Amino acid sequence: MRCPAVRPLLAIALAVTLSIAVAEEAPPPTTAGVLAASTPADWRRPDPENVLYLELDSGRVVIELAPQFAPLHADNIRTLVRAGYFDGLKVIRSQENYVVQWGDPHADDPEKARPLDPAKATLPPEFTRPMRGLDFTVLVDGDVYAPEVGFSGGFHAARDPEAGQAWLAHCYGVLGVARGGTADSGSGAGLYVVIGHAPRHLERNITAVGRVLRGMELLSTLPRGSGPLGFYTDPAQQVPVKAMRVAADVPEAERSALEVFRTDTAAFAQLMEARRNRREEWFLHPVGKVELCNVPVPVREVVGTE
Amino acid sequence: MRCPAVRPLLAIALAVTLSIAVAEEAPPPTTAGVLAASTPADWRRPDPENVLYLELDSGRVVIELAPQFAPLHADNIRTLVRAGYFDGLKVIRSQENYVVQWGDPHADDPEKARPLDPAKATLPPEFTRPMRGLDFTVLVDGDVYAPEVGFSGGFHAARDPEAGQAWLAHCYGVLGVARGGTADSGSGAGLYVVIGHAPRHLERNITAVGRVLRGMELLSTLPRGSGPLGFYTDPAQQVPVKAMRVAADVPEAERSALEVFRTDTAAFAQLMEARRNRREEWFLHPVGKVELCNVPVPVREVVGTE
Repeated sequence: MRCPAVRPLLAIALAVTLSIAVAEEAPPPTTAGVLAASTPADWRRPDPENVLYLELDSGRVVIELAPQFAPLHADNIRTLVRAGYFDGLKVIRSQENYVVQWGDPHADDPEKARPLDPAKATLPPEFTRPMRGLDFTVLVDGDVYAPEVGFSGGFHAARDPEAGQAWLAHCYGVLGVARGGTADSGSGAGLYVVIGHAPRHLERNITAVGRVLRGMELLSTLPRGSGPLGFYTDPAQQVPVKAMRVAADVPEAERSALEVFRTDTAAFAQLMEARRNRREEWFLHPVGKVELCNVPVPVREVVGTE
Repeated sequence: MRCPAVRPLLAIALAVTLSIAVAEEAPPPTTAGVLAASTPADWRRPDPENVLYLELDSGRVVIELAPQFAPLHADNIRTLVRAGYFDGLKVIRSQENYVVQWGDPHADDPEKARPLDPAKATLPPEFTRPMRGLDFTVLVDGDVYAPEVGFSGGFHAARDPEAGQAWLAHCYGVLGVARGGTADSGSGAGLYVVIGHAPRHLERNITAVGRVLRGMELLSTLPRGSGPLGFYTDPAQQVPVKAMRVAADVPEAERSALEVFRTDTAAFAQLMEARRNRREEWFLHPVGKVELCNVPVPVREVVGTE
C-alpha cells in the first residue's frame, strides 16, 4: 500500500479540507447537499470534440474521451467515428461482471473485415502518461493497486510518483481499447466499457481512453454472451450499433446537453468528504474512508439554454 | 489502511505461500492452472439447508446463505421461504451499478402487506460477529475499508482485530437484508443482491447473509427502475418471483448440483497468488496485488453422481 508515500498526502489533504470547512463554515454534509450548494463554476461542459454518441436501438450512450491520457487513441477513434466505421457494426461481447465490447464481428477475417483507413490499424500503447502537467486531486484513503489515486480532469485516475506516470483508473463505466496479445495491437476499432466490479488489474496493461457519462444501463443490461469471455456465439444475438458520432458533428439541437462536476474544486473536495463519511440519515456507521471507484463524478442535464 | 497491522500478516502469508511453492514445486501460474490441478478435497458441497433457489421466469438464481455470519437472519429467511412467503412476490428494484431487490411491493401498506408469520418481522442487527471461532484466510494486499480482508467459509469477508469483529464483505453478488432507518428494521422479507461495483461502505451498516453462486446474469441484466433508488414506478415492470425454495426441500433430481472452491486450502492460496500476479499470456504487467472483490471463489457443476 506504500503508506509512507500516502501519509503526508493525507496530512495535506486534511488541511485543505479543514481550511475549506473553516472558510465556508460547515460544508454540506451529504452528496445531495454538496450538489445543491454547487455553483455554475463547479460544473464544466465537455468539449464536443471529446464527446462520442454510441447510438443503439435502445437509446444513446454518451461517452467522454480523455485525450489528456491517450491522445493517439482519442484521435484514431474520432477518425474511425467520422469515417462511419462503427455504423452498422455490432456489440459482440457482454461478459457478466466484466465488460461489454463492440466492433467488427469479422475483424479477424481479412476477407470480411471492414477497412480502418484513414484510421491507423495499430498504435503505440498509451497505458500510462507522464504525471507532469496533469492536474490531480488526490483521494486520501489510498488504494490497493496504485501508489496514489484520485481525479484528473473529471476522470478517476491513478499515478505512481516513483515512476512519474499517471493513468485512467479502470472504474465502472470506463472506456477501454481492446487489444490482442501485444501492447501495440489496439487501434480503437474495438472498444469496451466496464459493466462490473472495477477490474483495476487491467491498468498499465491496456489503454483506457474515456468514460460513459450517460446510458450505462443500455450496456449493463445487455444479455450476456454464452461463449468464452462473454462473446455472443450466435450472430443474431449481437446488438446493432446504429451509429457512432462525435458530438461536435451533431446539430446542437440533437446533442445531449450534459455538464460534468469538476474534480479540481472545493466543492469536489467536499463531495469526497461526503462519500468518506456518509451522513445520510440511513447510515449508522460512517466509514471514514472511500475507495476510488465509489466516489461518483456527477453528471447533470443542462437546464435552460446558454 | 492500518499498514502496521497488515505488515506482519504480509510476512506470514508470504511465508505460507512460499512453503506451499516449495512443498509442491512451481504452483500453477494461472487461475485456470490452479483449478485444473485442484483435487476433490479442494471443493465443498454447500449444505442444502444453506442453499436457496430464487426461481424467476428467466431461470434459477442459486444463493448460499452464510449462517456463521448472520444466524438469526439465515433462520428467518429459511422460515419465510418455507412458508411460501416469497412465492408470487416481485423484484421491485433494479438500480444501475448498485442492487436488485425483491420482496412485497405492498410491504409498507398494513392493509395489503403479506403477513410474515411464523417468521419474525424484525431481528437484532447482525452487521458484524466476533472474530473468535471464525476461520479466516487473510488476503495480504490490504484494503481501503477494513483493517483486514480475506475469506471465511468460502465467502469474501473482512475483520477488525482491534474490535474483535468480522463481517461479510459487500462484493458483487452478495446477498443483503434490506432495512429501514433503524438497525433492527430488517427481517429478510426484503432481500437484495449487489449487481455493481462493491458498495463496501454498506458494511457494518446492514446485515449481509450470503452470496449468489449461480445466475447473477438473471439479476444484473434486469431493466433498471426509473424511480428513485431504481424502484420500478410501474408495477407492470416488476419481475415476478415464481418461488423461493430451500434446496434441502427440493427433490435431489431438481437441485442445482454445485461445488464451491474451498478458501482454507493450499490451492486457494495459490489461486490468490494467481490473481495477484496475472500470468495469463495477455497480461504484460502483473500488478503484484489484488483487491478483495477481484478474487473469485470459483463454483462448478458437480460432474457425475455421488
